[in-house]
Amino acid sequence: MSSSAHLGVPVVLSGPSGVGKTTIRNQLLARYQDIVASVSATTRPPRPGEAHGKDYLFLSEEAFQEGIRGGMFAEHAEVHGRWYGTPRGPLEERLEQGADVLLVIDVQGGLQVKEAYPEALMIFLLPPSREELHRRLSGRGEDSEETIALRMKNAEWEMTFSQRYDYWVLNRSLEEAVSQVRAILVADRCRRERARVRLSRLGLSWL
Amino acid sequence: MSSSAHLGVPVVLSGPSGVGKTTIRNQLLARYQDIVASVSATTRPPRPGEAHGKDYLFLSEEAFQEGIRGGMFAEHAEVHGRWYGTPRGPLEERLEQGADVLLVIDVQGGLQVKEAYPEALMIFLLPPSREELHRRLSGRGEDSEETIALRMKNAEWEMTFSQRYDYWVLNRSLEEAVSQVRAILVADRCRRERARVRLSRLGLSWL
Repeated sequence: MSSSAHLGVPVVLSGPSGVGKTTIRNQLLARYQDIVASVSATTRPPRPGEAHGKDYLFLSEEAFQEGIRGGMFAEHAEVHGRWYGTPRGPLEERLEQGADVLLVIDVQGGLQVKEAYPEALMIFLLPPSREELHRRLSGRGEDSEETIALRMKNAEWEMTFSQRYDYWVLNRSLEEAVSQVRAILVADRCRRERARVRLSRLGLSWL
Repeated sequence: MSSSAHLGVPVVLSGPSGVGKTTIRNQLLARYQDIVASVSATTRPPRPGEAHGKDYLFLSEEAFQEGIRGGMFAEHAEVHGRWYGTPRGPLEERLEQGADVLLVIDVQGGLQVKEAYPEALMIFLLPPSREELHRRLSGRGEDSEETIALRMKNAEWEMTFSQRYDYWVLNRSLEEAVSQVRAILVADRCRRERARVRLSRLGLSWL
């Protein structure tokens, strides 16, 4: 089945660390039944309370590398010495069920998804300002100035990739950001070619 | 000022007679301050209660023809022997104030607007079915079978133009249709190039 016949589309949510990607993702998942989370795989060890298959597929380094060679992943990237990736199987299953699938991933992974699924919606979350991002990155209160400065540098680097994303959502208020991401998904379902597929599956006589 | 520098965009709402264009337009105008109505001009005489400058600019045949020759209109069309058009002046004023401007117009006019303003959002409203449309066109209870049949034929003809519109919104429930049109407008404001203009005018330091 070609990806264009999917009823759902992949939705890439990227943005610098601290911008609020996960909070927005969780709000969308809680509110809308037609939006689901992607399944991710990683080589990092489970944290307390994390379960295999629920939070992540926890794979050994060897299994992950074999997966890469076998084309198992829609995207994969190394972050701080650990591998993260999105297996194609569960992603395409969810798309075929008609759900839009949220992928909260870094910019490298995001661009790979767009390559594999050109219909993917590419959304970049922007912090209201550098100052606010610095505050959010510092606010965890557990890290040194050097660590925070490194995070800010990474954030600036990630921000340069916003130029490759189709949509920009400013996370000034959670409510506004969630409703803008939701609007982007709803609007895309109304695009002619996508609406045509959906309406003909509903058996609408006109089309 | 080039049209691409406008903060707002023209929003063309088309669809066959009876599909609910005006109801949807009125709901959007009532709910959202950042959506406004376009101003239309016509050569048809005012109906009881209609005021010049409020409902329409009521123009003489001569004034209208002169307006066409002078490039006064963003779009114009003859319908049942009467002329209708959208003057550019008030339209561009509203766009420059940052509002999205709703134009409820026929397909001929809609395509002219897209020509004049390539950034225009082209939304086609679809009836749930031929049967339901027939019911709506008959439901006014004041017309002959011939008149209704002619309206259905016109509706079928207008429906063929749906292929030239970017978005399809099924008017199965008013609430759903209104929220889909709203989503299309909100999503478009989040498109990168449009968001860049808006955010830089907000003075956001990052961009």
